[in-house]
Amino acid sequence: MNEHIVKSYDEELTQLAAEVARMGGLAEAQVAACVEAVAKRDVALAEAIVARDERLDAMEIDIDQRCTRLIALRQPMANDLRRTLSAIKIAGNLERCGDLAKSIAKRALQLTEIEPLTPLTGPIERMGKLVNARLREVLDAYTSNDVECAISVWSSDHEVDEHYNSLFRELLTYMMGDPRMITACAHLLFVAKNLERIGDHATNIAEVIHYELTGMPLTAPRPKGAPL
Amino acid sequence: MNEHIVKSYDEELTQLAAEVARMGGLAEAQVAACVEAVAKRDVALAEAIVARDERLDAMEIDIDQRCTRLIALRQPMANDLRRTLSAIKIAGNLERCGDLAKSIAKRALQLTEIEPLTPLTGPIERMGKLVNARLREVLDAYTSNDVECAISVWSSDHEVDEHYNSLFRELLTYMMGDPRMITACAHLLFVAKNLERIGDHATNIAEVIHYELTGMPLTAPRPKGAPL
Repeated sequence: MNEHIVKSYDEELTQLAAEVARMGGLAEAQVAACVEAVAKRDVALAEAIVARDERLDAMEIDIDQRCTRLIALRQPMANDLRRTLSAIKIAGNLERCGDLAKSIAKRALQLTEIEPLTPLTGPIERMGKLVNARLREVLDAYTSNDVECAISVWSSDHEVDEHYNSLFRELLTYMMGDPRMITACAHLLFVAKNLERIGDHATNIAEVIHYELTGMPLTAPRPKGAPL
Repeated sequence: MNEHIVKSYDEELTQLAAEVARMGGLAEAQVAACVEAVAKRDVALAEAIVARDERLDAMEIDIDQRCTRLIALRQPMANDLRRTLSAIKIAGNLERCGDLAKSIAKRALQLTEIEPLTPLTGPIERMGKLVNARLREVLDAYTSNDVECAISVWSSDHEVDEHYNSLFRELLTYMMGDPRMITACAHLLFVAKNLERIGDHATNIAEVIHYELTGMPLTAPRPKGAPL
């Protein structure tokens, strides 16, 4: 008998979860780095982020194929099936976080070619830290199977939205005050929006974890800051 | 024996694909309507889009649960498993298209409260039509199992990006020319960006269909317009 088949299903699921967690660690690092690339106008860092994104794409494909094989070979039921499908969904969300980080890194490159907007570096960095904390918390919830922690990430999404809204208004004020700032501000608008979307993916992952652990969708109306 | 179990697997998969196609039809309608709401400054239409988005959310949950049940009860192999997992992924992409259409509808509401930017209505409408055509084509590819058609959608993504880039530059020019236009232009920047992202989801769906039909990921470097 094939050694692979002999491994317990539980062991395979643990390995799968470990690969998802590793992908999460890489996505988290990409998100932290892209904000730093914007704040420090760091061309080399931004280029490294763009290059590194391929690894996240490859990891998603790998997790997908591993799950498909697992379902086909093991025909899991109930809990095990939910854990396997969760892995596919979380990997999908992480891959998109990586895309958003890459897109921020590309804007960081464009921003180095124009005048810096120093007063906004602080707010962007703070929003980046907030979003990265959400991502870290939800990955903690995943690795520790902590449904309470997942719910807590899910319910605090409005903080990111509030931060985004205040940045949006601030950027518009700068644009109106000085037309030479418009190009930089337009890029920073998207940087802020991408960070908000990474926050949304953390929320999506929280929903997936909740469903995985409880079998119930998390559909109650979420406290929403209604992002602009 | 349960009537449900007696149904052939093929029949169940056909029903599942039909539900995904129906969800696709609704998503397509939402995307077309949100662009119209922006162009015609139509408050009632925008509000209807926001209200209707819940149906897409519910359909995604339903398709998800149906697939999970199907895998658990039928333990599909190879092709059938790929078809089932495809349905989950396509539904996920369509749900996000719906979210983006809802977000455009919300901006349409905010835009009705400020001065119209008439010269940009045409370009936004054209971009909306282009993106909607991509979505329609990829849904056609799905319902007709047409891998060539999926590849054609996937390879023409750069047209949407080019359209987006030209709109981005035009919007920046308006902002620089007249600071009173800045708020409207900032909203339209996001409308354009959301349309570009709906185009990306059409591309993602094309990748899912390709994998479903061939068992191979579609990973060749895609002709990219490198959106700003």
